[in-house]
Amino acid sequence: MDIANYMQQIGQQAKSASRLMARASSAQKNQALRLIAAAILREAVAIRAANHIDMEAARATGLAPAMLDRLSLSEQAINNMAEGLLQIAALPDPIGEITDLKFRPSGIQVGQMRVSLGVIGIIYEARPNVTVDAAGLCIKSGNATILRGGSEAIHCNQALAKLVQEGLLGAGLPVQAVQVIETTDRAAVGQLITMPEFVDVIVPRGGKGLIERLIKESTVPMIKHLDGICHVYIDDKADLVKAANIAFNAKCHRYGTCNTMETLLVARPIAAQILPKLATLYARKQVELRCDAEAFALLADYPYLVAAQEADWSTEYLAPILSIKIVSDLDEAITHINHYSSQHTDTLVSEDYSRALRFMREVDSASVIVNASTRFADGFEFGLGAEIGISTDKLHARGPVGLHGLTSVKYVVFGHGEVRE
Amino acid sequence: MDIANYMQQIGQQAKSASRLMARASSAQKNQALRLIAAAILREAVAIRAANHIDMEAARATGLAPAMLDRLSLSEQAINNMAEGLLQIAALPDPIGEITDLKFRPSGIQVGQMRVSLGVIGIIYEARPNVTVDAAGLCIKSGNATILRGGSEAIHCNQALAKLVQEGLLGAGLPVQAVQVIETTDRAAVGQLITMPEFVDVIVPRGGKGLIERLIKESTVPMIKHLDGICHVYIDDKADLVKAANIAFNAKCHRYGTCNTMETLLVARPIAAQILPKLATLYARKQVELRCDAEAFALLADYPYLVAAQEADWSTEYLAPILSIKIVSDLDEAITHINHYSSQHTDTLVSEDYSRALRFMREVDSASVIVNASTRFADGFEFGLGAEIGISTDKLHARGPVGLHGLTSVKYVVFGHGEVRE
Repeated sequence: MDIANYMQQIGQQAKSASRLMARASSAQKNQALRLIAAAILREAVAIRAANHIDMEAARATGLAPAMLDRLSLSEQAINNMAEGLLQIAALPDPIGEITDLKFRPSGIQVGQMRVSLGVIGIIYEARPNVTVDAAGLCIKSGNATILRGGSEAIHCNQALAKLVQEGLLGAGLPVQAVQVIETTDRAAVGQLITMPEFVDVIVPRGGKGLIERLIKESTVPMIKHLDGICHVYIDDKADLVKAANIAFNAKCHRYGTCNTMETLLVARPIAAQILPKLATLYARKQVELRCDAEAFALLADYPYLVAAQEADWSTEYLAPILSIKIVSDLDEAITHINHYSSQHTDTLVSEDYSRALRFMREVDSASVIVNASTRFADGFEFGLGAEIGISTDKLHARGPVGLHGLTSVKYVVFGHGEVRE
Repeated sequence: MDIANYMQQIGQQAKSASRLMARASSAQKNQALRLIAAAILREAVAIRAANHIDMEAARATGLAPAMLDRLSLSEQAINNMAEGLLQIAALPDPIGEITDLKFRPSGIQVGQMRVSLGVIGIIYEARPNVTVDAAGLCIKSGNATILRGGSEAIHCNQALAKLVQEGLLGAGLPVQAVQVIETTDRAAVGQLITMPEFVDVIVPRGGKGLIERLIKESTVPMIKHLDGICHVYIDDKADLVKAANIAFNAKCHRYGTCNTMETLLVARPIAAQILPKLATLYARKQVELRCDAEAFALLADYPYLVAAQEADWSTEYLAPILSIKIVSDLDEAITHINHYSSQHTDTLVSEDYSRALRFMREVDSASVIVNASTRFADGFEFGLGAEIGISTDKLHARGPVGLHGLTSVKYVVFGHGEVRE
């Protein structure tokens, strides 16, 4: 197989399909989503059989249990995929929406129309549900998409791709609007990220290593985040009950997510009061605490105590490990966060009005939270209805990215014969 | 002078200044703009003297008259620069604005806060007024900026930079928020566009050749357009009076601007009726008409008639030259435009409601206009108050780019102690 030729063909087909998707009606797009959902439920047994082949092969190559867990599709997971598509169908169609239509002194009326981006390339690991979620979001936002999932999920992804294309066909939409790359050859990814003539944006989802490599090689813009080094700062004006709940939830609700807290900052005046209480909570979950010298001294009896190293302040543990630092005040906290944070999500716990406003304004992260868990930084929790990924960049899309992040706008002018004087 | 070291230092200083600019109050930023405007009026004689030095040097090297014209600063141009700053001061401050603050079922309240981008690099040709306009827009949007103007304007730009920095200082803002590169060495540009650690976005303004070169080398995202191949399509349902006014204005109002029409498309059923009328108008301005075979036959007596070549459909003349093609209908017009247009600005002239809606939806350009001149595609005419440039890309900013294009948003969450269940 000539990978370069194959990818050129995939790219051309996607580009052609994207033109038809851009002008598809809301009714057609929603019909496609509902047809795909129905096909997935109808073919649940066949999907699980394809998934079984992938799982057997992955076990044989000794894939890690956590990866196997992501790869496996339970009956519930299949129902969730179908349900997710119906939820996307129920969202308002962003495409064609015109906002801010205003008359200008010249007599023209100027507004902005939301339009699709074109072709979205999505690169992800061995999670077959992403195939369906991403296809659904791209269809609804009037884009064509090229999907490249982890090679371990290839059989399941191809089974799902057939059902997606069946749904597109049934709704009178181009089947090539959603294409799953059929080869597991890594060169296909190299091609996908260097075809700016066909691909408008790449959404990479996966580990930091993968994304760093893609950034280096890609000539197509990306909507991405590298990692989530999220902070909670407990201010000396904090409500300590809220503080304990938030700091516990932000670390222990789930360890492997990018919006999980990795570093806890505590104001010196209340450190001796709050830290032992928090330690009691963390001890139940056997959370390792990597403390600076002051916090270390306060928590000397804690069973999973470690002295923090400089590297801890910039490490995403994705595990029951938390670094803790005591700071003098809000200024030191903001300075620490703006230096070490991955600009993903950071939380202040405080009842002080002015400090809350300062934290919101001065912390330079995609999501800045006062008095709530970092775990809320998520497309569904923020009300986007769905999420294609999270961006820690400032251009185009920032924070959780939903349908709008897969769109652009153009200016539209309603004239009545006006000319420039 | 070690250019790499020099630019690293400029970059670091800009990054530091950008942090202070991001949190500057509206009052401080507006005070700086007013102080700079006052300083420019006060030092008008000195500015013109610096400009005189540049003009003499440019004449000595034989700079083209059109370029000399752009380089020269009349008293009126100096007044306009000051007036422009006062207009920017009068615009609402976009930074810190919070929109769409909504309660979620979890109890948190989520919105988006507008924030500055950081450091903007601006690369432009020998037009000293851009120095002041760009500085003003970057100050107002809470960014730091590094300005690299055409080397022919170096004395004038440095004189203006001093006044800008005087204004920043007077308002208590960091003087390094606006830095003008002090060397005319081209290597400085190469450095500026490859310092993503210091520069968040590059706005290049200039000819297609310059921008193509920058695109190839830059590792920093750009807000840009390459050229303006703008179309007017006169539909067979057009009001022919409006059509003639618009087609004449779009070509002849100014020849050298990127929103000037370069290709006129005419529906076959009305071609014989409208084209001779238009030719009478164009003849007065000695506009050369490069026609396809059908239009050529209709305009056989026109004094400046040329047969169009394939290359004409993708040429930006920036001159009194117009290519003309006869098409069968709206579909052929849209297909031609989406193929040959530079996605800048395209106009339909028609009284047909459904065709107007289809043109607006299906033409994939930054500005899509019905029944008005392409010349309206401009930040001031669209009501942005000011313009840093025009983007024909779809990511981040599209069309005329004002203050908002120099900003991003972050999610802000107002919580009351909420945690994820």
